[in-house]
Amino acid sequence: MEIEEVKNLLENKKFNILKNELKEMNSADIPSLLEELDKESVVKVFRILSKEQAGEAFSYMEPDMKEKLIHDLTDAELRNVMDELFMDDTVDLIEEMPSNVVKKILKVVNKDDRKTINELLQYPEDSAGSIMTTEFVDLKENMTVEEALERIRTIGLDSETIFTCYVLNKNRILLGIVSIKDILIAKPGSIIKDLMVTNIISVNTKEDQEEVTKVFDKYDFFALPVVDNENRLVGIITVDDAINVIQDEVAEDFEKMAAMSPTEDGYFETSVFKHAKNRIVWLLILMLSAAVTGAIITRYEQAFATVPLLVAFIPMIMGTGGNCGSQSSTLIIRGLATDEIELKDVFKALWKELRVSLMVGVVLAFVNGIRIMLQYQDLQLAIVIGLTLIATVILAKALGCLLPLLAKKLKLDPAIMASPLITTLVDIFSILVYFQIATGIMGI
Amino acid sequence: MEIEEVKNLLENKKFNILKNELKEMNSADIPSLLEELDKESVVKVFRILSKEQAGEAFSYMEPDMKEKLIHDLTDAELRNVMDELFMDDTVDLIEEMPSNVVKKILKVVNKDDRKTINELLQYPEDSAGSIMTTEFVDLKENMTVEEALERIRTIGLDSETIFTCYVLNKNRILLGIVSIKDILIAKPGSIIKDLMVTNIISVNTKEDQEEVTKVFDKYDFFALPVVDNENRLVGIITVDDAINVIQDEVAEDFEKMAAMSPTEDGYFETSVFKHAKNRIVWLLILMLSAAVTGAIITRYEQAFATVPLLVAFIPMIMGTGGNCGSQSSTLIIRGLATDEIELKDVFKALWKELRVSLMVGVVLAFVNGIRIMLQYQDLQLAIVIGLTLIATVILAKALGCLLPLLAKKLKLDPAIMASPLITTLVDIFSILVYFQIATGIMGI
Repeated sequence: MEIEEVKNLLENKKFNILKNELKEMNSADIPSLLEELDKESVVKVFRILSKEQAGEAFSYMEPDMKEKLIHDLTDAELRNVMDELFMDDTVDLIEEMPSNVVKKILKVVNKDDRKTINELLQYPEDSAGSIMTTEFVDLKENMTVEEALERIRTIGLDSETIFTCYVLNKNRILLGIVSIKDILIAKPGSIIKDLMVTNIISVNTKEDQEEVTKVFDKYDFFALPVVDNENRLVGIITVDDAINVIQDEVAEDFEKMAAMSPTEDGYFETSVFKHAKNRIVWLLILMLSAAVTGAIITRYEQAFATVPLLVAFIPMIMGTGGNCGSQSSTLIIRGLATDEIELKDVFKALWKELRVSLMVGVVLAFVNGIRIMLQYQDLQLAIVIGLTLIATVILAKALGCLLPLLAKKLKLDPAIMASPLITTLVDIFSILVYFQIATGIMGI
Repeated sequence: MEIEEVKNLLENKKFNILKNELKEMNSADIPSLLEELDKESVVKVFRILSKEQAGEAFSYMEPDMKEKLIHDLTDAELRNVMDELFMDDTVDLIEEMPSNVVKKILKVVNKDDRKTINELLQYPEDSAGSIMTTEFVDLKENMTVEEALERIRTIGLDSETIFTCYVLNKNRILLGIVSIKDILIAKPGSIIKDLMVTNIISVNTKEDQEEVTKVFDKYDFFALPVVDNENRLVGIITVDDAINVIQDEVAEDFEKMAAMSPTEDGYFETSVFKHAKNRIVWLLILMLSAAVTGAIITRYEQAFATVPLLVAFIPMIMGTGGNCGSQSSTLIIRGLATDEIELKDVFKALWKELRVSLMVGVVLAFVNGIRIMLQYQDLQLAIVIGLTLIATVILAKALGCLLPLLAKKLKLDPAIMASPLITTLVDIFSILVYFQIATGIMGI
């Protein structure tokens, strides 16, 4: 639906037509429609939505629109919205709202939900417990498929998924998993116990959310059960939430790898001051580290006073070293993130990088040698730069390979060992190698 | 199950125990178990698996193991495996196998499947058509829920998902979508037409797979219908395949952003020569571009002959410029990839980056000024470096912001405008600015 049409219908008070048009929309598309309206109309349109659609649309909104709406809705209206939200969305909402808004929310939710919310809020950030929801279909192992279907019909509407059902004993220990497909296809009278799968793959509430995404990636699940230390089922994580986690983790890695503190907000939602703050720390560290390279250069003042042309090659050597290092570190960091590379592979990876470096280094030295011969007809210079390039490439790729693995070993995030830091470190070593080779060969 | 146990059971020919133990495993875990066995035992264990589990396990294997198995299986055994595979996995298999293996596969599949395979192979790489599968549940709009359930029971076992069912007319035009949840919860006798959702979100077979992942991300779907130009339903994409695409696209972006040609194979599967080839092109381009910076430096030979200390600050200025540029370009590239930033936002983004640059630049200049005063007690040098830093940061962030947007405008992948290229470009400008400011203020 076009925004002009919505405005028109609102203006002419044709609420019934508007209601029917909205019903035809996917709830996920409603927030971007509301973004285009003025504050008053937002509440008006939101009130026109059916209870179910209002709840769904609400869950897709940006925090600032949620906050505005909560402010404008009556307690009864807000209660309707909260009724429709799944527990994981409720907890996310409470975590991102300021305390006065949280107070208004908690006032309208019922006592049982308040208890569940408080429990869920206890789980550490980025843990499986913090992203799970508590609405799932639980069955008993001695149920027949008919009884199971009856139970699914009863509680299905309030469950985040009915595709996978969980078989629990009376202590809520997870005994098995049964898919709705198997229930539907089973012969009448079949017992759940005979249909359920017992080789259960589950995660503990404390498991890191990144590990959770790896389980989804490996097993192609639609939902994953989350159990406590006593193997009691306390929640499930659905695949759509896993996708959100994957996207968040990727964004975080990109930011870390470009020397920024990760942020959860979008680019335009983050203030200028916050942007500057996120970027300045690493810039300062890297800038001051570059002073080391500067200090090395001053030690060779004599050399470039004699052969000033040496200075002209500094950017090329530093640049090539940095690029080679970040190629290797990016591959290793990604490999570690996807579990393709493990700590024990250190020598295998290093051996691979060494052979790649030699190949790449020789080609670069050769091409550059031709350029120098054409431009300066100076064989000695071509040899100096060629040897420096080969040494720099080997060094850069070795550092780019080893440092992320070292970070992993020290239980740090390998992503911090990305281009910016690698480049700065490679700079130091490559300048040292460069002037050593130059002064050695040229006898200056 | 431990690998030693498998080997023991094999050796003592306790195949029945082994079979039962394997049945308890998740099919996705079987390939890594087989990896540990010698070639002969692999086939032996694979033959012990049930038809269903063999098919599932096969779909999770790496290409080289698939190839070995196809080679060793009889035609009848291979036919059983192919029967179990969904069409998207079959097509993937055919695309990654050498032609003699493909011949063996095509020989065992039936005529209808061969026709479907040929059709699917026509879709361009990375299109929705190339990743979809053709096994889904289709219903008619005048069916009752009982008839629908009967149809789901009949064809459900061979469908990739029964969670979402598709309502088609006699020309196979997609009329609506109905979830198994709604069918189960509906009153007996309800007609599918009254249950189905008609605001269908679908993609065309030619749609790029990256756009497909955005639809999954936005709407939290489990499956997405794929239609042809006449709006006929030709296949579906399930969420587990969407996750694989997300992971592939992310890996590709990481590789492009570190100046490498993207590859679909894993780190260790890629040969040394292939690694070198993927990395050398950009290294050569960037190395030769760095010659421009070198040429600028030689123009200022007089300046650093007079004040040699100027050379020592080259790495710091170049490094800071590169880091600032890659921070901005990473954020813009990610924003473009997730649709948060659009082309029309160019001035909004540039204005944001300018303010961030000013803040960051002043802080860096100030901290560095203190260091220079402590180390060299040279106010003039502190001012030169400070002004250069501020100018470099502004320039770097402006380039980092504009170039990815320019690439997008030119229908190129913004990811090529990442750190390495930005750094090289910023190098050129920052060295120019540096020597201009230095010669101007110092009068050399």
